[in-house]
Amino acid sequence: MMIPKRAFGLVFCLLLATGLILFSRTLGHSLAEYFFGPHGPVIPYTTHIVLFQFKDGTSKFAVKEVVAQFFGLKKACIHPTTLRPYIVSISGGKDISTENLQNGITHAFVLQFHSIEDRDYYVDDDPVHKAFKEAASTALEKAIVVDYQNGVFTSV
Amino acid sequence: MMIPKRAFGLVFCLLLATGLILFSRTLGHSLAEYFFGPHGPVIPYTTHIVLFQFKDGTSKFAVKEVVAQFFGLKKACIHPTTLRPYIVSISGGKDISTENLQNGITHAFVLQFHSIEDRDYYVDDDPVHKAFKEAASTALEKAIVVDYQNGVFTSV
Repeated sequence: MMIPKRAFGLVFCLLLATGLILFSRTLGHSLAEYFFGPHGPVIPYTTHIVLFQFKDGTSKFAVKEVVAQFFGLKKACIHPTTLRPYIVSISGGKDISTENLQNGITHAFVLQFHSIEDRDYYVDDDPVHKAFKEAASTALEKAIVVDYQNGVFTSV
Repeated sequence: MMIPKRAFGLVFCLLLATGLILFSRTLGHSLAEYFFGPHGPVIPYTTHIVLFQFKDGTSKFAVKEVVAQFFGLKKACIHPTTLRPYIVSISGGKDISTENLQNGITHAFVLQFHSIEDRDYYVDDDPVHKAFKEAASTALEKAIVVDYQNGVFTSV
């Protein structure tokens, strides 16, 4: 036998850890990115950058409402075929840049999707996202949206 | 004795894994964010969003040069006290948004720093970053920069 009896615990533990990591698509992805970098053997996430400038006179309460609804999309947006949430991550915050290159922007959000197809569904079809856009647009002066796949600089 | 002899392998392996994760500041941070979310018991990274519009007529070669130099900052930017690289991550790519809200932007980059202090050093003092900025600016029509700490919406 190749594995000594005393190492069974260790081998079992390693197998369990590997299984858990593979099972967790998100965690596996970030570990793969961590170890292999953006050019590793994974399809890079599609990153979706959203920058907001609110209308003059928008109340703090209204801003808070938009922000809370935005973060809520992580769980509220459901994929039509898997019937599960499909937004990998949403992060965001109030601008704290000191470079004066905000072009009026005050709030930033970065979303990640598993694929361009998921991004397309989010942008074009998702009814929950559509409702959010309509509600938020009344408070917005300007929105800038830029998407990319990490490390991909060729035209699509 | 509380731990049966046969479980030593397993316990050792768990301790090793915990040690490795704690040792690796970056990995520990992303795992913590994964398990606890943006409001978990960690100081959120400072995210630094940089969007570029290149001047009309900028050659593909010049664009490639700027992009390569930008990604190179990950290793080239050295912290003055730790004498080690301090940019947590750089990701970026060519815009593939379909929403027509790019405001002229064609390339996007997202950097992460451990703290606002690291971001300040990068923006204000880092000589490597300064040299990059000067080299890149000749090819740039416009740059938009927005920073945030994930989940922080109060004014600083």
